[in-house]
Amino acid sequence: MRQTYHTRLDALSDQAGRMCQFAADTMRDAHRSLLDADLALAEKVIANDVALDEMRATTEEAALELLALQSPVATDLRSVVSALWIVADLQRMGTLAIHIAKAARRRHPTAVLPNEIRPTFERMGAVGAHLAARATVILRDRDIELASGLAAEDDLMDDLHRDMFAALMAPTWSHGVQTAVDISLLGRFYERFGDHAVAVARRVIFLVTGENVGGDTTIYDAAPER
Amino acid sequence: MRQTYHTRLDALSDQAGRMCQFAADTMRDAHRSLLDADLALAEKVIANDVALDEMRATTEEAALELLALQSPVATDLRSVVSALWIVADLQRMGTLAIHIAKAARRRHPTAVLPNEIRPTFERMGAVGAHLAARATVILRDRDIELASGLAAEDDLMDDLHRDMFAALMAPTWSHGVQTAVDISLLGRFYERFGDHAVAVARRVIFLVTGENVGGDTTIYDAAPER
Repeated sequence: MRQTYHTRLDALSDQAGRMCQFAADTMRDAHRSLLDADLALAEKVIANDVALDEMRATTEEAALELLALQSPVATDLRSVVSALWIVADLQRMGTLAIHIAKAARRRHPTAVLPNEIRPTFERMGAVGAHLAARATVILRDRDIELASGLAAEDDLMDDLHRDMFAALMAPTWSHGVQTAVDISLLGRFYERFGDHAVAVARRVIFLVTGENVGGDTTIYDAAPER
Repeated sequence: MRQTYHTRLDALSDQAGRMCQFAADTMRDAHRSLLDADLALAEKVIANDVALDEMRATTEEAALELLALQSPVATDLRSVVSALWIVADLQRMGTLAIHIAKAARRRHPTAVLPNEIRPTFERMGAVGAHLAARATVILRDRDIELASGLAAEDDLMDDLHRDMFAALMAPTWSHGVQTAVDISLLGRFYERFGDHAVAVARRVIFLVTGENVGGDTTIYDAAPER
């Protein structure tokens, strides 16, 4: 029975880890579909919503069964509860990536991003991929040192997000309102993707230490200053 | 012991209910601060972040204690787990309202909203208040009939959000890029506030019926169509 119990706990961690990898892959593909105006890739990303919701449902179910049948305590309990929280963040990360792919699909064959703003988005995509990869490692290894540092790494995303707004607000901006609106929302999706990766890290800190620092508690507001 | 147990379960529900009311009040004040360019009210809203995080932390702690010490099963277990989920949505609702108040503060004493878009935002604020009030009742009464209908009521928010984009994209739009960017993000905050109210309702359906329909699983993307 104890063996089954620990096997199930391990399986739950594995499920969360695979879902994190899937969210990371979804973002990588969404980002490429946006930059390359790649409709087929965008469609592939958008279709991931079904798999995302299945992963959420099966992981939640496994966690609920463990709670109901095994009444875990201490670290085991925190590991189940943090899985319940983390799955919500991971699903949101996937959904934000899907929003990005939808923007690519909506404007296809036109590229959403004017050339002058592409480098900023290239970097936001790279930071997003990095944060998601870090979250996957943090989840797998329960590495609280990496977890503690993730918010600082996410600051780079926030800096890029500010650069993006500065470009939109510059007097030299010549791409009109619709493009500015598209880009504002896209920037928000990348930024929120990073926030949720940090939230995953925070829940792993709770799992390991019992210190409950919350999940997506970022109230930093990166909208443009005048 | 059983008495204490049920008293604690009831207290947990009450905490979540109070937090929902607080999120609703925060949105009401944020909305007024935006429409009236009321700096003092905006500051009051922004200061709510401390209370929101305290409510999150104490409610989560109460739920974790119940899980660790009482090993609830069946409806009781679902009630504790749904509280853990719902608290995350309620904190996010409060944070989104705070984002709105921050926009009012950032542009003060200038009004963020041009007159022609005010009526749309008046209605988005009213729908947001309605959805949050409904969520409070759904939580208090565990009313799954109301809960099942909330997504349809949130459709009105999505319609208003589309109207908002149409106004920004119209050839008659004369307020420039910065205002359009501000409004795009504000519209997103109202829309997401509604999504999270629906997520709360979905978690109450899980609580009562055991059917796990997820929380914030909305993948509807309300960004503008060409």
